[in-house]
Amino acid sequence: MGTDLPLVSPLAPKRGFPDLPVISGVEFAAVEAGVRYAGRTDVMLARLVPGTVIAGVFTKSATRSAPVLDCQAKIGGGDETGAAIIVNSGNANAFTGKNGLDAVARVTGAVAETLGLPKERVFSASTGVIGEPLPDERITEKLSELCAGLAPDRIRDAADAIMTTDTFPKGAGAVVKGDGGEIRIAGIAKGSGMIAPDMATMLVYIFTDARISRPLLQQMLTEITASTFNCITVDSDTSTSDTLLLAATGQSDAAEITGLQGPFRDALHKVMLDLAQQVVKDGEGASKFVEVQVTGADTDEDAHRVGMAIANSPLVKTAVAGEDPNWGRVVMAVGKSGAKADRDLLSIRFGDILVAENGWVSPDYSEESAATYMKRDELLIAVDMGLGNGAAKVWTCDLTHRYIEINADYRS
Amino acid sequence: MGTDLPLVSPLAPKRGFPDLPVISGVEFAAVEAGVRYAGRTDVMLARLVPGTVIAGVFTKSATRSAPVLDCQAKIGGGDETGAAIIVNSGNANAFTGKNGLDAVARVTGAVAETLGLPKERVFSASTGVIGEPLPDERITEKLSELCAGLAPDRIRDAADAIMTTDTFPKGAGAVVKGDGGEIRIAGIAKGSGMIAPDMATMLVYIFTDARISRPLLQQMLTEITASTFNCITVDSDTSTSDTLLLAATGQSDAAEITGLQGPFRDALHKVMLDLAQQVVKDGEGASKFVEVQVTGADTDEDAHRVGMAIANSPLVKTAVAGEDPNWGRVVMAVGKSGAKADRDLLSIRFGDILVAENGWVSPDYSEESAATYMKRDELLIAVDMGLGNGAAKVWTCDLTHRYIEINADYRS
Repeated sequence: MGTDLPLVSPLAPKRGFPDLPVISGVEFAAVEAGVRYAGRTDVMLARLVPGTVIAGVFTKSATRSAPVLDCQAKIGGGDETGAAIIVNSGNANAFTGKNGLDAVARVTGAVAETLGLPKERVFSASTGVIGEPLPDERITEKLSELCAGLAPDRIRDAADAIMTTDTFPKGAGAVVKGDGGEIRIAGIAKGSGMIAPDMATMLVYIFTDARISRPLLQQMLTEITASTFNCITVDSDTSTSDTLLLAATGQSDAAEITGLQGPFRDALHKVMLDLAQQVVKDGEGASKFVEVQVTGADTDEDAHRVGMAIANSPLVKTAVAGEDPNWGRVVMAVGKSGAKADRDLLSIRFGDILVAENGWVSPDYSEESAATYMKRDELLIAVDMGLGNGAAKVWTCDLTHRYIEINADYRS
Repeated sequence: MGTDLPLVSPLAPKRGFPDLPVISGVEFAAVEAGVRYAGRTDVMLARLVPGTVIAGVFTKSATRSAPVLDCQAKIGGGDETGAAIIVNSGNANAFTGKNGLDAVARVTGAVAETLGLPKERVFSASTGVIGEPLPDERITEKLSELCAGLAPDRIRDAADAIMTTDTFPKGAGAVVKGDGGEIRIAGIAKGSGMIAPDMATMLVYIFTDARISRPLLQQMLTEITASTFNCITVDSDTSTSDTLLLAATGQSDAAEITGLQGPFRDALHKVMLDLAQQVVKDGEGASKFVEVQVTGADTDEDAHRVGMAIANSPLVKTAVAGEDPNWGRVVMAVGKSGAKADRDLLSIRFGDILVAENGWVSPDYSEESAATYMKRDELLIAVDMGLGNGAAKVWTCDLTHRYIEINADYRS
């Protein structure tokens, strides 16, 4: 990524970065450390009060980055003390061998010392180029400046600092009525390449003042991830660094949450889905946002498989980029998905337009109205398999020249 | 595909179309039927003498085209009579419901009648746009002209007629010394989008005068397909129409082939690999040909999985297009493949250049020499997993702007 930064995605939320609720018990700061980029912030720090419980989901890649391995070792303990999260952009500290783990230890150790925390409670992440040593001294040199800047209302600065090829900072929040008081949720995320199925996500940090036990928070997070971040794909490539941390400070006046269902879970689901969709909308080179709905599949798993086959198909994605209602490629993707399918029971819609049913083009289908529909920014491709009750939704974007421009010379 | 036909792929064989041996017992013809394209041939016919045995492999797609379903029903019988193969380009006759099967019956029935063959011995294929009714009368109207043109030396005309987005016709042949005489092999193929793993291939027709039983020919074909056509990928999309037919006329003076191994199999393997690699070299928008070699995997299956994950990764393919030795993306692809992997045992080479070993960049690695290497037309990416003896080779091409140009408006 050089001087020619991408323009803002045409799919960026019109509202800009949202006004997120301030979460009691969390402070944020960001700083220019020059890890790789010049003239912008590239390190964020979040400090969490004692009693904060943290849940996490991580990439399933077999070549996980050093910070991911470190986070996975640390998650699940020590709630009695405070905690911190430190993240840099510009360098992923992935595939950096023993040196990579040493760098993580130096960064998290320095944060722990500066903030007076046990180092087991300092979580880190790194995002950017793979395979280059992390210049961790650039981060540790800036620690006092970073800590001096900590403030409860600086979450937007944190969202800015973790961007790489992102074209806009991503945030989502909610305020829910709990039993005896309000519960607030605020989250940030970054994309925007190497976004793929079967993973946690890229980097996502969500904060809430809810009172909730760690096991319950973790279970809720894992379940919601399955229908949000694990249902998005930009390019089918799974990052080595995907990390989602959810921190609950317990500072809300509302009573402790003790059940898996309820308004808090609904609000958390909404925040996670919003962030996941923002990641897709800032997919590298994206000019169209596509929801793929699959119904009538033999099982939910089959429906997800079909959805992902459509959402990952380069031929479907280039047709969407070309505003071509090429439903034949949707049929092709159903066929290759590996899911149970009967060609003669398939039906396909683009938005409200019935394109094909019973294995052939619908008699009412008008190519002209479908072509008009395809000019929209946000599209729905709906497939009914005609077999059972399995259903799934996944979200993706188109495959454009801009994706190739960004990725053919990201490092130069 | 409109008037703006693609230029010839920069990876096309410098020799042009090869001089293929004439196979005794086969005649070819091609004709302009105007199925979709104007000003070019679009239907080929091959006539085979009585006694010809035919083996085939087909797409595993759940949304197979009508001609594929028809071929699968017919393969495996009736060697005592002659046979014919008729193929059109421009229309895939896929996802055309009952009408599609009727069209196949009309075309194969007319060929059978004209050539005096049982219709169970007429094999067909269609390639091109999915979901539009096949204007089969345009083909049947031209049948007498087509039959009048049949000649043993017109295989090149057949190769031309089956092209769609292909930029060059694909042929490969061999002459092997058999016991008591020579055995000749000649094959043709067409690509060049929707080329993906776990399939037979696009359209491939191979002819030989060998004397061999159908079961042995089928077994040989299936085995060789696994290490040739099932090891190529252009874009990870699996066609609804992939068909490979191998016809042996039995006209050679050489003794019957009775074993699975030997010079005939070796020559057939070479012809199939050559055709498979030509399909990749004419991959839509391809500017680089890439061999991915995986060694040291836990199993051969794991090695294939890793090879395909690398070969299908949009991030690896765009890096290749950008001549960027971005080995970090190779690591990423290994990680997402699902194969057993230990980051700290991985080594990676670009050609002879050792890029990374033991989980980190090699001390001798020079980005400059790797960048020079990446400027070549034909590249080798070699990964050693450091775990066992599993090995595989797969072949792919880069992902370029041209791929998007071709596919964002193929139908317009």
